[in-house]
Amino acid sequence: MVVPSVGMVGAGQLARMTCPAATGLGIGFRLLAAACDDSAARVWPDARLGDYRSLDDLRAFAAGSGVLTFDHEHVPGPHLDALEQAGFVIRPGPAALRYTQDKLAMRDRLGSLGIRCPRYAPVTDLAGVERFAGESGWPLVLKAASGGYDGKGVWVCESSRDAAGVLGLGLRLLAEEYVAFDRELAALVARSPHRQGAAYPVVQTVQQEGICREVLAPAPGLAPARAAEAQSLALRIASELGVTGLLAVELFDTPGGLLVNELAMRPHNCGHWTIEGAVTSQFEQHLRAVLDLPLGAPAMLAPQAVMANLLGGTDPRVYDRYVHVMAADPGIKVHLYGKAVRPGRKIGHVTVLGDDVAGLRDRARRAASFLRWGTEDGE
Amino acid sequence: MVVPSVGMVGAGQLARMTCPAATGLGIGFRLLAAACDDSAARVWPDARLGDYRSLDDLRAFAAGSGVLTFDHEHVPGPHLDALEQAGFVIRPGPAALRYTQDKLAMRDRLGSLGIRCPRYAPVTDLAGVERFAGESGWPLVLKAASGGYDGKGVWVCESSRDAAGVLGLGLRLLAEEYVAFDRELAALVARSPHRQGAAYPVVQTVQQEGICREVLAPAPGLAPARAAEAQSLALRIASELGVTGLLAVELFDTPGGLLVNELAMRPHNCGHWTIEGAVTSQFEQHLRAVLDLPLGAPAMLAPQAVMANLLGGTDPRVYDRYVHVMAADPGIKVHLYGKAVRPGRKIGHVTVLGDDVAGLRDRARRAASFLRWGTEDGE
Repeated sequence: MVVPSVGMVGAGQLARMTCPAATGLGIGFRLLAAACDDSAARVWPDARLGDYRSLDDLRAFAAGSGVLTFDHEHVPGPHLDALEQAGFVIRPGPAALRYTQDKLAMRDRLGSLGIRCPRYAPVTDLAGVERFAGESGWPLVLKAASGGYDGKGVWVCESSRDAAGVLGLGLRLLAEEYVAFDRELAALVARSPHRQGAAYPVVQTVQQEGICREVLAPAPGLAPARAAEAQSLALRIASELGVTGLLAVELFDTPGGLLVNELAMRPHNCGHWTIEGAVTSQFEQHLRAVLDLPLGAPAMLAPQAVMANLLGGTDPRVYDRYVHVMAADPGIKVHLYGKAVRPGRKIGHVTVLGDDVAGLRDRARRAASFLRWGTEDGE
Repeated sequence: MVVPSVGMVGAGQLARMTCPAATGLGIGFRLLAAACDDSAARVWPDARLGDYRSLDDLRAFAAGSGVLTFDHEHVPGPHLDALEQAGFVIRPGPAALRYTQDKLAMRDRLGSLGIRCPRYAPVTDLAGVERFAGESGWPLVLKAASGGYDGKGVWVCESSRDAAGVLGLGLRLLAEEYVAFDRELAALVARSPHRQGAAYPVVQTVQQEGICREVLAPAPGLAPARAAEAQSLALRIASELGVTGLLAVELFDTPGGLLVNELAMRPHNCGHWTIEGAVTSQFEQHLRAVLDLPLGAPAMLAPQAVMANLLGGTDPRVYDRYVHVMAADPGIKVHLYGKAVRPGRKIGHVTVLGDDVAGLRDRARRAASFLRWGTEDGE
């Protein structure tokens, strides 16, 4: 009996939440972890220790995995190319992953496909930034072309002085117009090597300081045509870029239409609600897609789901407090990631399902706030 | 930060399905496994090897676990008593577990509480069986007082000759009347040391040759008063017997009322549907109950859930076939237990949620049959 198997590079919370999906599917699953107490390594037996920046470590890991996939986009592109040339099956492949590793390449590629993004330009010096500001005005956004996440690598600059500070970091940068959006949306889809596609309902994401705080699924009040447009856009990008596995497309919803903000080719924070709220969780869907299994139904199990991230506070006694959250709300689903509590770090999330988005947001916020601060109005 | 922790004795599929719940709750969780390829040990890092019949192994295991619990009822009672006297926290405790280990004690205790069970009597010889048959008629049921499961240890006897064969096994036996039931029901409840209780919707179980084949949640067409009676009965038994954790009460639904068939104090096959179909899965609920955490909501996420067990067939290539099941029904949830395929062995289950019980049963049966036999009408 040949059991399908997947090796996931990375052992953070995305890998951790993939473990229950691997358990249900009964597949072989292996992690490449940096340390034995990584979030996912705490809950999965087959975790190999290694460095995702080492080609030797990657090669040894890939040798025992039917399909190689990722819980982050930081594996160096040349290593991925070398592994692919050596015959390993990598999903998503290096040709697609490139567009999550290099925002300039992503913008150029989407532009060539006629897909609308914020106005942008590569910048290398203050003169370039000021030239861009001359067209787009201040504030503008400077972004590291690679390596950023969760608001890291993104700077809103009000002036040349702000920009000079960012330029001083010595990173490869692009400038983007500051988009006055109505709200942020995300379209999560899966695509398999057989070219099957599946689209989850389009969600609204609520960010603070570049960090996702809440996800509302589906996005409240989103016109069906706009939702369908976002899903089609994500499926088209997945197809054009040759994505296998999940693709999350972060979007700005503006009076003038949808603009693509970011891409991710892995399970994504915008899809955590699917663990309880969808027939097929994003984690199971990613495994099915990279294994080229038929995709699962992305339909919702409730009219509305709300997810709130749990960020670390200054008091690490989360377990003392979660008793109270459970007592206050027997319907709340608490997920803790087994990570050390540090202020502002994502250490878990809560999800709640129901009908009334305002009531659900209130419940999710109360729970997340109480877990973080020990009060229901700590933020 | 004190992280709650549970040690579960046993590493079969019930322990396996508890692992994702432990992952979500972020608690410490440890297994006592007989072998490193036990169903649960394949998907959890902290599995200790040991023999649940060895007091030394149990004591060493208990020493590293905040609360000790079980995925089966076969740990010898004297060992449990010794562990409890040594100060370990055991939930459910030996005083309650006794009634899952000794069917005569269970019948006597339920009888003393005025709870209706099938007519029964301890029997030690053929004269005793024939005396019982004189009152209850043939056929009658002989049961091993301890050690049985999944139809093992239960014999329907048509005659003295059948009974003589069972008596020849040299087991401690009880005789029970053969109940002409309309159907079998199960009431699954949880009770915590703080005496909080939670009751899942009452389900119908469909058995073949003593093995559960299907579970319909809720039991179709069950009168609300009868459902409430079954839930109250289960909560009362949990309270009277001092159960902490889950209690599954298997019931005969007869024209004359409900009769208690069996008790189990652990996650139970009748509750597998709760993984997808309830706000709180039975596995999470058991962990919450034994940790004395507030219990989760047992409400359903769909009007109807159907679970079908997947039994091993003669061809072990399950993974070749599950591709087809996924393709045929994107909404089916397949759970494989990582166990070697042997004819008739429970190796997984499927669950499907929706509205129409007949349609859902059809989908679940097709999937289970195809996984077992490679055809949709193999049985």
